Formats: sequence, C-alpha cells, structure tokens
Amino acid sequence: MNIVSQNLRTPGPTPIPEDIYAAMSDPMINHRGPEFFDLITDCTEKLKQVFMTGKDVFILTSSGTGALEASIVNTLSPGDKVLAASAGSFGDRYADALDAYGADVQRLTFEWGEPVDPEAIRQGLQADPEIKAVMITHNETSTGVTHDLQSIAGVVKGEFGKLLLVDAVSSLGCLPLPVDGWDCDVVSTGSQKGFMIPPGLAFISFGGAAWAAQQSATMPKFYFDLAEAKKYLDRGQTPWTPNLSAMYGLRAALNNILDEGLEGVFDRHVSIGQFTRDGVRRLGLELLCADEARASNTVTAVKMPAHIDGEALMELMRAEENVVLAGGQGKLTGHIFRIGHLGYVTEADIQEVLDALGRVLPRVGF
Amino acid sequence: MNIVSQNLRTPGPTPIPEDIYAAMSDPMINHRGPEFFDLITDCTEKLKQVFMTGKDVFILTSSGTGALEASIVNTLSPGDKVLAASAGSFGDRYADALDAYGADVQRLTFEWGEPVDPEAIRQGLQADPEIKAVMITHNETSTGVTHDLQSIAGVVKGEFGKLLLVDAVSSLGCLPLPVDGWDCDVVSTGSQKGFMIPPGLAFISFGGAAWAAQQSATMPKFYFDLAEAKKYLDRGQTPWTPNLSAMYGLRAALNNILDEGLEGVFDRHVSIGQFTRDGVRRLGLELLCADEARASNTVTAVKMPAHIDGEALMELMRAEENVVLAGGQGKLTGHIFRIGHLGYVTEADIQEVLDALGRVLPRVGF
Repeated sequence: MNIVSQNLRTPGPTPIPEDIYAAMSDPMINHRGPEFFDLITDCTEKLKQVFMTGKDVFILTSSGTGALEASIVNTLSPGDKVLAASAGSFGDRYADALDAYGADVQRLTFEWGEPVDPEAIRQGLQADPEIKAVMITHNETSTGVTHDLQSIAGVVKGEFGKLLLVDAVSSLGCLPLPVDGWDCDVVSTGSQKGFMIPPGLAFISFGGAAWAAQQSATMPKFYFDLAEAKKYLDRGQTPWTPNLSAMYGLRAALNNILDEGLEGVFDRHVSIGQFTRDGVRRLGLELLCADEARASNTVTAVKMPAHIDGEALMELMRAEENVVLAGGQGKLTGHIFRIGHLGYVTEADIQEVLDALGRVLPRVGF
Repeated sequence: MNIVSQNLRTPGPTPIPEDIYAAMSDPMINHRGPEFFDLITDCTEKLKQVFMTGKDVFILTSSGTGALEASIVNTLSPGDKVLAASAGSFGDRYADALDAYGADVQRLTFEWGEPVDPEAIRQGLQADPEIKAVMITHNETSTGVTHDLQSIAGVVKGEFGKLLLVDAVSSLGCLPLPVDGWDCDVVSTGSQKGFMIPPGLAFISFGGAAWAAQQSATMPKFYFDLAEAKKYLDRGQTPWTPNLSAMYGLRAALNNILDEGLEGVFDRHVSIGQFTRDGVRRLGLELLCADEARASNTVTAVKMPAHIDGEALMELMRAEENVVLAGGQGKLTGHIFRIGHLGYVTEADIQEVLDALGRVLPRVGF
C-alpha cells in the first residue's frame, strides 16, 4: 500500500468499504461471455431500483461528466435551445458541455449558494416557447445546495412538457430522487459518491421523451452513443470494453444499498447532514447556504472566516490532522471550504473533522 | 469472490497479477490534492517511457475506444478527408468513429487476415492531395495481424507529411512501437492489454503535428478535450474525476514493465507468439494470417476447421476446460477463434490451452 488512509472528506471520491475492495479483486472475465451477461444484467436491474425507474439505465466507463455529455449528445441537435439553470461550478460545467456541442444555451444563473428558483424556470419557459430542454444540477456540489428538483420537474414536465436533463452526480443514491415519480427524462450520476465505489463508472437513466429525442438528435456521438449501448445491453454486453473491476464493486455496493433499503440510505444522509451543519455552527462558522431547507445532506460548504488563510487551514488539516477537506471551486476558491458527508461516512468521521477544526482554526487566527 | 478464476485467453481483458490487485486496494485520495499530483506525474512520466516519446501523454478515464474518439475530435474538422486503412473489425470501428464525427472518410480496405499494404497507402495519398490524415490500426485484434506501422509511418509522415493517427490498443506495451522513432502524431491504447491492469483507462500520446491540428479542429468535444486535459495536467490534475484505483494499478504495472525493460517485454511477446502459433499448427489447425512475418505476437486467430461447430468448441473449452477463447468478430464470426497471449501470460498458460484443444477438438468432430 503506497497511500496512507486519511479521513477523506472530499464530496467524492469517498472512502471505500473493505467488502468493495474484496469484490474488485475478482478475476477478469470475457466481456463478451456468459459471466459478464450475469454481471451487467444484475447491476442494471439493481441500478433501476436505486434510480426508482422503469426506464433504461446504462453503465458507462467514464466519470460522471461522461454521462452528462451522453445526456446532451443523445437528445439534442446543434442550435437546439436549452434553458440551463446554474447556481455553481457544476451547473456551469453542464452548460459548458451544452455549449461545446453547439446547443443554443440560455443560461439562467443564480447566486452561488442560492437555490435555483422554480418560478424563474417557469418564467424562462413562458418567455421562450422554442426552448426544447431544461438542464439542472440536482445537488450543486460546489455550494452545498440541493435544488428543489421535484418542483422544477413539475414546471418543466408537468406544465411545459419539455425535456428534462438532470445532473445527479452528488445526489443519486444519497438523496431522494424518484426518477419516474418526478418524471425526469435523463438522469446522470457517477460511481464515486453515494455508491461508495471508486471513480471510473457513470450511470445514466434514459427514457420518457428521451428516446424520441434520440431519434432526431444530430449532435455527433460515438463513445457515448446510447442507441449503441442499448443494442449491446439487449444481449448483455457493452459496445466497448467495460471497467470490470468497478462493476464488481458496483454489484457488491448495490447489494449493500438495497439490503439497507433506500429509505435507510436517505435517512442516514439527512441525519449526517444535520449533524455536520450543527457541528459547524457550534464552532462559530457560517454556512454558505443560508436556506436550511435546501442545505445539502451530501456536502456542506462553510464560509471561510474573514482574514483566515484558507490554504493554510486546509494544509494544516491535511498534514497534521489527516483530514482532507475540499476547497472552493471557481469564484468560490479561497472563500469557502467543503466537508463531504456522503456514502461511506459515520458521525465519528465527522466528529473527527469538527474536533480537528476546533484545534486548527485558532492556529490560523480564528 | 464471486467469480472463479479461468485461463482467460481473450485478447484483453487479460488476467491481473496479484501485486496489481493489492495496489488497486489503496485508499481513495483527493484528486485535487498533493497525493494525486504525485500519482499522475509519476504515471505520466513512466507512460512516456513505454510510449518511447517526448510528446504529451494523457490518461483518460474510458476504454480504448474513448482514446480513439479523442484522437479524432482533437485533430479534425467535419469534412476533413481521412484515409482510413482497415483490414478488420477494429480498423472498421476507428473508421466508423471518424464517420460519426463527420470526417470525409476514404476507406482503404484489405482482406481480413491480410496486412495493410504500405504501397496502397502511398497510392491513396498520391491520388488525393487533399487527404489530411491517415488512420491505421497497428495490431488488428480481430484477425491477429500486426500491420507494418514503421513502413506505413514512413510513407505517411516521411513522404507525404500527413497527420498519422494510430490505434495501438492491442500492441502498445507488448510490441515495439517507438512513437517518436516512427514519428507517430497520435497513438491510442487501453489499460486492459499489455499493461496487465483492468479495463477503465485509456492512454494517448499527442504531439508533433497534432497540437497544430488541435488549434483548428472544429469537431465538438468536451469529455475528451485534450487541450483541457493539458491545462489540468500542467497542475497535476485531470479535468474530470479520474479512475483512481486503476491509476494505482497503473503505477505498479509501469514499475513492473520498466523493471523488466521494454526489450524484455517485447522479447517475451515474440517468444510466446511463436510458441502459440507452433502449437496451433502442431494440432493440425491453420492460422488466419498466412504471412508469418506479420502474425501478431499478442493474439492468434485460428481458422475454424470445416464442419466444426465453433460455438460448441468454445463452450466446451469454457465449461469443461476452464479456458476462455475469443470468437470471431463481424464477418469472421463462426469462422475463427482467437487465443490472446499478451500481458500477464506464460507458456504454461498457452500449453494448457493447446492441451485442452487437443482433448476437445475430437469431441466436436475434428
């Protein structure tokens, strides 16, 4: 082992349970053979339960951003108008991917740290009937805010019948997201968050209006072509060689998640989110997200206190306390730090973070 | 462990050595932190040694096909004329990817089982000065033929100065491919072959005329944007969350490969390739590749004897002899079977295959 174990509190990658490592050490198999047929069939079936969907679900060998790209190139054509709601770095990333493939991106931006307002989306859709799709980040990892996807979906699907593309990378498998219940057409996530396995796989649910859109979508695609993925999945394969070891981990992780039950998983995240926010406030620190009802239960963004050297704080936490925090991204760099509390994490892990902060903060002048 | 260990003789994924599994069980780290900086810097530096190049080398979280897509979208614009030389299923796949992104693909095809003729490439380039790039598969996994890349590169680069895109998925790290020595602009490979780690990473060298082409290439790209990858690599990161566990395996694998020495790796493949072909011929079977000088040292394609049920042969080998062979692909389905002998493989493994074939072939009527 080259690397010493840390209290890794980035909002993904998350620590990995021992049984996942053991599963990942299973020997390689022929990805065109019967053993793989069983593996992908089992994983796909159980992923659908976690996505709470009867739609298609695909396993992609990529990180979550690959699934975001797949959601775009499989539903849209260059010039298609897309309303891109963003209140942080990951919302911007999704919109940038739309831009890269030539969508006509109508950016609807909110203060970083604020929730996306469903009413603003309603107004945006009312103002421009040519908008074909709405893009939204369910849980904005860069700010620790969970947007009100249920209400947003009610507007986008229920009132306007537009295509709904959801980035659920840091929410699915942690926070409630009933894909069919909320009528989401395309939902993307990654393996290194709620699923407690390493990065390297992405999962995407695709159905409802999405397959109809796929028929006419002319954005170029090859590696992320979901029509091709579906053709292969029907015979228990993937078009390209899949990340087998992560899929072994996925099978074990899905069994763990379904054994615990989705309600149990959601409750656990509600409870640890509350525990983290309460602890942070007790230290005299302020949360970036002022709206407690929208505070994320997977990641907490904490305002860097005035006159504190954030770099020094994070480096002392890492080097002397063995606690790895995440910094701010984009325009929040230096202004916040973030504590991940998703997937494989206990209150003891968070207490360790809080205790360490209690020791380190005074040393950097707080 | 869910899966019983087999003598897995697919030409990738290959079996994984124990020390790689151990390395892959290292704990997760922050992919924006100093531990990852060390990991990616070390891996990239050593990958350059294996690629024998001073050009840029990138590690992508995808399978090899993702790197092929990256080689296209980072060098070309829709409508660009590309001479696509293909003599098998993987050559066709690369050409299909070019098609998908709107290149004007001039297909130069050869019989499956034959080598690509450098003279035909010369004639193709002479006939059409508008051709901007040539695409070639170094080792055609579907037919067990290693094309004469050195001569082809001499024509494409030395005589015509065109861009050269090379699929080296089943050759790099097994067969000699001096990227700079042969002046290859872009070379793509995957993790699950010569590198002896699981699928889930792709590696791509990019330089020479490629960066100049990148400046004007208008094919859309986001996940596979190498300019973005370079910007992040300069600070020891990747744009998107990388497949950490496979990178831990990669670090260990690169140390093994460089400890053995590239000449040792190449010699080992020459010797096991010869051992396999000799053994197959001794069984009275015929090779698909008639040209011994171009027979691949990573995979051997064997003609299915007349009146033999190929499905039955492969299923008996798997179910009763615990040997997993690969079938034919595309139009060779049913007409050949293939034995992989790349990466982590010994003569004893191959002898086991030959012995098993000796027992099973008579049972299916040979």
